[in-house]
Order: sequence, then structure tokens, then C-alpha cells
Amino acid sequence: MERILSGLRPTGRVHIGNYFGALKNWVSLQDSYETFYEIADWHTLTTKFEDTEDLKNRIINTAIDWVSVGIDPEKSVLFVQSDVKEHAELHLLLSMLITVPRLERNPTLKEMIRDADLKGQISYGLLGYPVLQASDVLIYRARKVPVGEDQLPHLEITRELARRFNYLYEKVFPEVEPVLTETPRIPGLDGRRMSKSVGNAIYLSDSKEVVREKLLTAYTDPEKIKKDDPGHPGGCVVFAYLSAIGVSNLKELERECKKGGRGCVRCKRETASLLNEFLDPIREKRGKIKKKDILEILKEGAEKAGFEAKKTMALVRNAMKLR
Amino acid sequence: MERILSGLRPTGRVHIGNYFGALKNWVSLQDSYETFYEIADWHTLTTKFEDTEDLKNRIINTAIDWVSVGIDPEKSVLFVQSDVKEHAELHLLLSMLITVPRLERNPTLKEMIRDADLKGQISYGLLGYPVLQASDVLIYRARKVPVGEDQLPHLEITRELARRFNYLYEKVFPEVEPVLTETPRIPGLDGRRMSKSVGNAIYLSDSKEVVREKLLTAYTDPEKIKKDDPGHPGGCVVFAYLSAIGVSNLKELERECKKGGRGCVRCKRETASLLNEFLDPIREKRGKIKKKDILEILKEGAEKAGFEAKKTMALVRNAMKLR
Repeated sequence: MERILSGLRPTGRVHIGNYFGALKNWVSLQDSYETFYEIADWHTLTTKFEDTEDLKNRIINTAIDWVSVGIDPEKSVLFVQSDVKEHAELHLLLSMLITVPRLERNPTLKEMIRDADLKGQISYGLLGYPVLQASDVLIYRARKVPVGEDQLPHLEITRELARRFNYLYEKVFPEVEPVLTETPRIPGLDGRRMSKSVGNAIYLSDSKEVVREKLLTAYTDPEKIKKDDPGHPGGCVVFAYLSAIGVSNLKELERECKKGGRGCVRCKRETASLLNEFLDPIREKRGKIKKKDILEILKEGAEKAGFEAKKTMALVRNAMKLR
Repeated sequence: MERILSGLRPTGRVHIGNYFGALKNWVSLQDSYETFYEIADWHTLTTKFEDTEDLKNRIINTAIDWVSVGIDPEKSVLFVQSDVKEHAELHLLLSMLITVPRLERNPTLKEMIRDADLKGQISYGLLGYPVLQASDVLIYRARKVPVGEDQLPHLEITRELARRFNYLYEKVFPEVEPVLTETPRIPGLDGRRMSKSVGNAIYLSDSKEVVREKLLTAYTDPEKIKKDDPGHPGGCVVFAYLSAIGVSNLKELERECKKGGRGCVRCKRETASLLNEFLDPIREKRGKIKKKDILEILKEGAEKAGFEAKKTMALVRNAMKLR
């Protein structure tokens, strides 16, 4: 089986945007690939280095959510990035093989600078964010990385670094290929990108009541004022959720909405129920997970990941003729 | 005793410029400080990542030269940087605490870019060179760093990073102070800075014959053509060597030269003899050092350094509330 590496930052509470955008796909990949899933805590520091107070808890809660949705520690290596120190060593070595101008051309850097409100004061670590990502992937000599279209530029840097290393020293890293998957961007309740920091997210761990209340606040078509005005489901947050859940009669509901036969309040209530139905088994699974089991899973994950990372670093040092 | 950290890159053959500019001072510091001396192999990669073929030998030979001049493994921790992986971890964490513009303002960066003929294609690792230096110092919580005036800007970055870390998290690092020492810049045989890559160096391991031959090629006063023309010892390479060796009658020789009473060829021959006298005990000591003893010294050094580095990283992770 080919090896896959993917990771997410430990936000603490996984939202449905994370789920439909990444985790759902990760779960399905477990049966056809050797899967390594990383809680990328060092990456968090690239933009939020001053906000580490609750990081340990966020890591545990992130792992709980991952296991709740079906990341199976029997099938996948679930680990915390900073538990495998070799990532830092490879990051340092790879940092010699890429120029500053190349990193400055990274198209997603500007987006991150804007999101984190950094006003040009990028940290050295943030500039090198794709180098750390490259080390995350290459240290497991992963062949595949599941990505959305928007992450392709980062993967390109990983591919360049692998090629450059293989050319300068000797072939250690395989050619990394994207597994391009349909990962819909789930809008937040206000129509913007769903994000914990924006406060517009629905969490996997929200209670039924909270989901219902949040849905009622969802931003809907401002031109549909009366319930029998014709709607525009194409740009509607609520329809995006219905589509993500995969309701069977979506087309029918869309037609109804466009004709003005579907009031928004009723629609939100129905969607909340469907979302709660979808979340119920996840909630049930979470209820059975104990913190000590998660700690054990992460410990085992760190051992397995560490074992592979050490093997790669031995090859890397040998290729570079280091000690 | 206060702790000192200093390091040099493993060039393989230590020249008299390295000796008079740094090592001589390191030897004398051993009795008044707890001294950590680092063979900075990762730093070599910041400019010479493609040239690692002989790096392992260069490390051994560098260590042999250090021990030959009196770096005493009983008094000092003599170790190879890359043997202590914690340097890479701290480097990664510190990389979040300094901005790219701050690193670009580093006045010695331009000099390094020029020396390495990089034409603006600085690697990410080279830009972060002072961050790696900071981690070298801070991981041992060293209080003092012996530096020449020209290295003060690098030390300033170390001090800033320590202050920033202590302020953001909790106090882990002491205030680092320079030990400013008189470290004369020894010119190369052609009058430029002595450097292995320029090919103008006199090595501690040069034989007597080689020292004599090299001295005869030394660049001297172009206005002193006949042996009884008045000379200008102030800018003379040969006089710089006499001064470094510390000959007792230097003033007298200078007066003689200025009066035109001292021919250059005779002066070079005498200087070669004095230099050989100075190098003789170093040569003798080197002759007794076995490679396997050096490997043992470096192994013990790595253990001692690693022990201290692990203690610091535990404090760092605790302060940052990492796992």
C-alpha cells in the first residue's frame, strides 16, 4: 500500500468544515493506503506562537474528534508532530535547499499574512512554513498527499525540495503526488470561510440544541424576505450544508426553494435536524472515548511515526554524508 | 563558574588565523569558565550544502587541531553540533520569534552573501543563520560568548531572542553577555583575510618546509624594492605574524625595518623559523593524537552537551506549554 501523510492544526474543536473538507476523506483513505495523520502543533506556532496556554488540551480534543469521526488507530498512525523531533532536524537540513525568494513567491503566504493580521511582520518561521510541511511529508517518504486545489502550491515546494535533495545527494525521497479529492469548502454561518477564529463554525461536538440555535442564525438570501419569495440555493449557506450531508432529495429541495415554495426558517429547522442526525453517531462515539485512551493512542502513534522518521533520517544523513 | 559557548565551522585544517583569532582565547578561557566548544557542522551547510563529501573527515581533523592547541577535553565540552539534535528543535521554536525583516537587517549577512558568491539567491537556512547561532548559545543557557567586535550583531540577535522568549513565556534564558577579547585579524599570505577557500592560509598542520616556502611568498611592502629601502611594517603581513607570535623585540624589528636596515627575504626566513618554533609543540602534540581518541572525545562531548540541551529543552517546552 502506498503511504499517505496529511495533517491539521490542533484547533481543539473540529468543525464540520474540517470534517467535510478533510477528515471525511481521510477516513475513506484508510482502507486503500498506509495513512499517517499528524496533529501539526508546531505549525500552530507559525502564526499563534504567543497563544500556547491551552495547546495541550487542544491537541487532546482534536484527537478525540478525529477518532470520533472514524480515524482508526488500528489502521492509521495518529500522532502529534512535536512528538517526533526528527521533523525539526529534516526541516533544518531542507532549509538550506530552498531560496528566500522562492518562499516569498508562495501564493498562500499572503493569504496567511492577511488572515493572521501580520502587516508584513512575517516571522522567519512563517516564511518557512512550507519547508516544515515538506519535512512532515518527506520524513515518512510518503508517496501521496491528499490536497484540495488550493494547497497545490505547498505541495509543489515539497516536490521541489525532494527533487533537489535527490539530485544533490542521492535518491532518498519518492516523487510525491497529490490525491486530488473533492473537498467542498463549507461556508461558515455568516457565509465566509468557516473558521474557529471568526466564530462562525458548527462543531462536531456541538450539542443538538446548539446546532439548532446556530442554524437559525445562518446567513441566507437577503433578497428572499417573505417565505414565498423565490430563493437562490446556489449561494445559500444552508443548502451548502444540505449538500455536504448528502441529502438524497437535494435537487427537489432546490427546485422548491427557487419556486418560492420553501421558507427559510422551516428550511433551517429541517437542516438542523438532518445535521443532528448526521452528528449523532459521532457524538455517541465521542461519549465512549476516554482521555487516557487518547493519550495511549498518541503515544503509540509517536512510536510508530518516530520509528519511520528515524529510518528516513539515517538515509538522509548517509546521503548527505553527515555523521 | 559561568558558562561559555563558542564554535567554529569544521574546515578540516585550522589555520593560524583561526588560532590567534579564536582558539588561543578559548584555551585561556578554560580555567575561568565552564566552556562548551562546538564544531558547527550544520552551519557549514548554510553556505556549502552541496559540498559535504569530506565533511566527516573535516570534523575529525578540526577536532584534532583543537586538541593539539590545548582545548582540553577534561576541562571543556568539545562536541559536534549535529550530534545534539535539540539544537534543531530550539532553532525551529525560536524561528517563530523573529521577523524576516529583522534577519534581513543583519549587517554580516551581506558580507556572507558576497563571500559565498550567492548573488541574492540566499537560502532560507542562510537567512536564519543567526537563529541557529542563538539556539547554539541558548540551548546551553550560556551566559557568555567570546566574540570579536565584528560578531556583536549576531550576538544582539541571540540576546533579543532570549529576551523575547523570556517575556512571552517565562524566564528560561540568562542574559547573554559578550566576552570581548582582543582577537587580531591575521592576514593571509596575500594580505587579504586568511581563509581556506582563498588559498592564502598557513595551517597549524603545515610542515616546517611548507611554512618556510609559504612565508617566502608572503605579500610585502611593494614600495620596498631593495633590501635597504625603508619599509612599512604597519601594513606588512610578515610583521602581523611576528606580532601574533608575540616576539619580544617587535618594536626593535619595526624600527630596523623602517630605517631600511632589514631586508624582506631575511625577515621572512626569520619569521618562518619563529613560526615553526611556535608550531613545534602543537605538531608534537598532534603526532600523539589517535583518531580513535578523538572519536571518543566527541562521543563524550555529545553526551555531556546532549544532557544539558535536554534539560534546557524540557524547560523550554514547559515554559511554552508544549507537550
